[in-house]
Amino acid sequence: MRTFLLQTAAALMLVAAPAAGQDLASKATQIRDQALADSTAWNVVESLTTEVGPRPVGSPSMERARDWGVAKLRSLGFENVHVEAFTTSAWSRGSESAEVVGPWPQRLNILGLGNSSPTPTGGLTAPIVLFHTYREMLAQPPGSLAGRIAVVTERMTRTQDGSGYGGINANRTQGPTEAAKRGALAYLVRSLSTDDTRLPHAGSSTAAGIPAAALSTPDAELLEHMAARGQPVVVKLNLASSLNPAAPAWNVVGEIRGSATPEEIVLIGGHLDSWDPGTGAIDDGAGVAIGVAAARLAGQGRPKRTLRVVMWGSEEQSGSGAAYAAAHIAEISKMALVSESDSGAGLIWSISLPPGSDGAPPMKAFLGAIGPLKVIVSRTPPEEGGSDIRGLIDGGAPFVDFHQDVSRYFDLHHSADDTLDKIEPKELAQNVAVWASFLYTVANSDIDFRKAAKAAK
Amino acid sequence: MRTFLLQTAAALMLVAAPAAGQDLASKATQIRDQALADSTAWNVVESLTTEVGPRPVGSPSMERARDWGVAKLRSLGFENVHVEAFTTSAWSRGSESAEVVGPWPQRLNILGLGNSSPTPTGGLTAPIVLFHTYREMLAQPPGSLAGRIAVVTERMTRTQDGSGYGGINANRTQGPTEAAKRGALAYLVRSLSTDDTRLPHAGSSTAAGIPAAALSTPDAELLEHMAARGQPVVVKLNLASSLNPAAPAWNVVGEIRGSATPEEIVLIGGHLDSWDPGTGAIDDGAGVAIGVAAARLAGQGRPKRTLRVVMWGSEEQSGSGAAYAAAHIAEISKMALVSESDSGAGLIWSISLPPGSDGAPPMKAFLGAIGPLKVIVSRTPPEEGGSDIRGLIDGGAPFVDFHQDVSRYFDLHHSADDTLDKIEPKELAQNVAVWASFLYTVANSDIDFRKAAKAAK
Repeated sequence: MRTFLLQTAAALMLVAAPAAGQDLASKATQIRDQALADSTAWNVVESLTTEVGPRPVGSPSMERARDWGVAKLRSLGFENVHVEAFTTSAWSRGSESAEVVGPWPQRLNILGLGNSSPTPTGGLTAPIVLFHTYREMLAQPPGSLAGRIAVVTERMTRTQDGSGYGGINANRTQGPTEAAKRGALAYLVRSLSTDDTRLPHAGSSTAAGIPAAALSTPDAELLEHMAARGQPVVVKLNLASSLNPAAPAWNVVGEIRGSATPEEIVLIGGHLDSWDPGTGAIDDGAGVAIGVAAARLAGQGRPKRTLRVVMWGSEEQSGSGAAYAAAHIAEISKMALVSESDSGAGLIWSISLPPGSDGAPPMKAFLGAIGPLKVIVSRTPPEEGGSDIRGLIDGGAPFVDFHQDVSRYFDLHHSADDTLDKIEPKELAQNVAVWASFLYTVANSDIDFRKAAKAAK
Repeated sequence: MRTFLLQTAAALMLVAAPAAGQDLASKATQIRDQALADSTAWNVVESLTTEVGPRPVGSPSMERARDWGVAKLRSLGFENVHVEAFTTSAWSRGSESAEVVGPWPQRLNILGLGNSSPTPTGGLTAPIVLFHTYREMLAQPPGSLAGRIAVVTERMTRTQDGSGYGGINANRTQGPTEAAKRGALAYLVRSLSTDDTRLPHAGSSTAAGIPAAALSTPDAELLEHMAARGQPVVVKLNLASSLNPAAPAWNVVGEIRGSATPEEIVLIGGHLDSWDPGTGAIDDGAGVAIGVAAARLAGQGRPKRTLRVVMWGSEEQSGSGAAYAAAHIAEISKMALVSESDSGAGLIWSISLPPGSDGAPPMKAFLGAIGPLKVIVSRTPPEEGGSDIRGLIDGGAPFVDFHQDVSRYFDLHHSADDTLDKIEPKELAQNVAVWASFLYTVANSDIDFRKAAKAAK
């Protein structure tokens, strides 16, 4: 177990509130160094993964996560800590099993996909039809997969920027629907994973009316070896999932209120819910921890604008972002910035700032401060932001993309391997340093990203 | 899926039988090169893991493995293919689960240890007492663990030679007995693993009369984090295992009979049984494959001595070695060499030849042939041989140690990750090349390791 010195409230007091005109750059640099030595983010994610663990939306542990979030924000000195309730659809895993029943009986390691239908009582037994690529399956005519379990074993490419995941995402999310269209009784997909462990990776899919599950990568390869023998391979699936179309859910919010223009919001967050096989450390305990720790450091001595932290309650199965945007639609025009950290705890290696802003003095101050952190300033404008802030972005809120190195992220993502030991504390701290410096400059300057974007056009 | 050219029987015919006086060294070299291009070992382990999969002693799949072994040896041209039945104790896993029930409820990933007692119906619930080292637990007085579940979370060291496993082996094998002596209700041990995946590693233990299981490494660390909070951590275990004291089991044997002195046996083998979570690829499908492929190459054109391949049927829970030795006690004096490959498919990096033999012309021929394979000749005499040949060794049979690089072996060993994809075909082929060259020189020379050992004294 790693140990860190505890950051005490007293230590934070040593950093004085920014005087008017004080050099943003030197303050952002000071906060950067403070962040690199700060244990708050590690302590937050250690606490969440140890005391709550996995927390799928709609589960009892998500209620514990909500209470944990409120208590954690309060104990770290946040103001206006509260819960914003909403309802959303929540799919729950039941007992699951899969096995080859013939000609070579073997158990298979699977995880049902979100929105999968359950199998009939007693299971579903059928021969498989195996495609090495998703495209191959899409090339099959309607009805051609009738009576069979469609299996897609396409491999995912390891990339630093996550494009390997983006390129294959439809295999999981749309695969069940496309298989069902062609008459398949069920759908199995090779886990969207860059690792070779025998742990399947969960994830959501569109409801297709058929059972759907992810195979671990060795299990997908086992079926390839069997299928290559040219005899019918018969698989039995048991998936006992259930769906609650209106489950209670919560976004947990805390603030450090602004001193000059408190109505102007600088928003950072991560999502509190997680998939169930791991403890939700990298997805997205890390993001929650980075947001909380960075906002706390950035808000020392009270910022000019209000810093707001949101722990979204249903990212994996969607719902929390839309609920948050709907509840805050009137406030979007006052949001100076919205942001989400949801790519694990790997180093930030590139950032995309709002268009037209990188020459503005506060952004120059920020970029100067993070110079030693080995971050590239991308020429590409921000594109993603985060799925929980999509509604706010669509409503016109400025956003950023801080790109993390995800070359190991998809080894772990949505699997039982998403556990605390996979987080490198120094990498987590680098994230906090970049975010804290950034949030500080945005919350303590009058930078107007909307105006900068217009001027740049 | 990897593809290889099939080695046909016709291709094997191209290598002529050794003429009397033919240079052993050039023949051993020729066989080395043949082995490096040969796909037999890969095909054997691919077939075993695909068509049989996991095969614990006492299970129906072990019967399938027996039939597979007979068919495979016959199809590869071995003679005198037969099964030698014996009975042995066989522990079988039933349903298993573990969870922290308070104060922070979470599921734990475990695998019951071989010879574990089952929990009472409805499970066993008790607070844990956690030790970071096994020595710490051993320091506790009798009775001091009463009413509690003892947990040992000591880490295993990664080494090239397996000494990290040897150094910590007692934590698993003796731990349940030592915990029981001190009054513990049950015993949990951090998996003897060098990896960080959330897959526990199975393995045998001495029967201690209490339930015993291995935690995955992230689960062991989770309990450390919980225990560090200073509150009682309560765990519920469910282990529904059973023990058959006299299960039917089988050693599968095939030979290439010698032309000159067929009564002199050169024996090579691996074990056919495996633990249940993986498909038994590295432990010990690889060893079976290496033995079969190497003996087949070494026996081309008929050797002078008899080459015998044994697939032992109960290494993991012991029994097959003793049964084999007991059945062949009269033959031991005729065994020119006994050997077993049971350390996965990593490269052979060092070999220990029988004492006094490395200067003998056949061994010089062998060492010359394998020069390019980057193998060190150790100054240490053979010590282990293999657990299935221990009885033969104790009876006086000469043996060798061919040390494989096991720096990755204990990431996978006894876990669900023991699957075909973890075998590197080129490394497997290097093993076959070393063994085939060696078996050839022993089976086609009059080298007498017993005499060499006496002369060396």
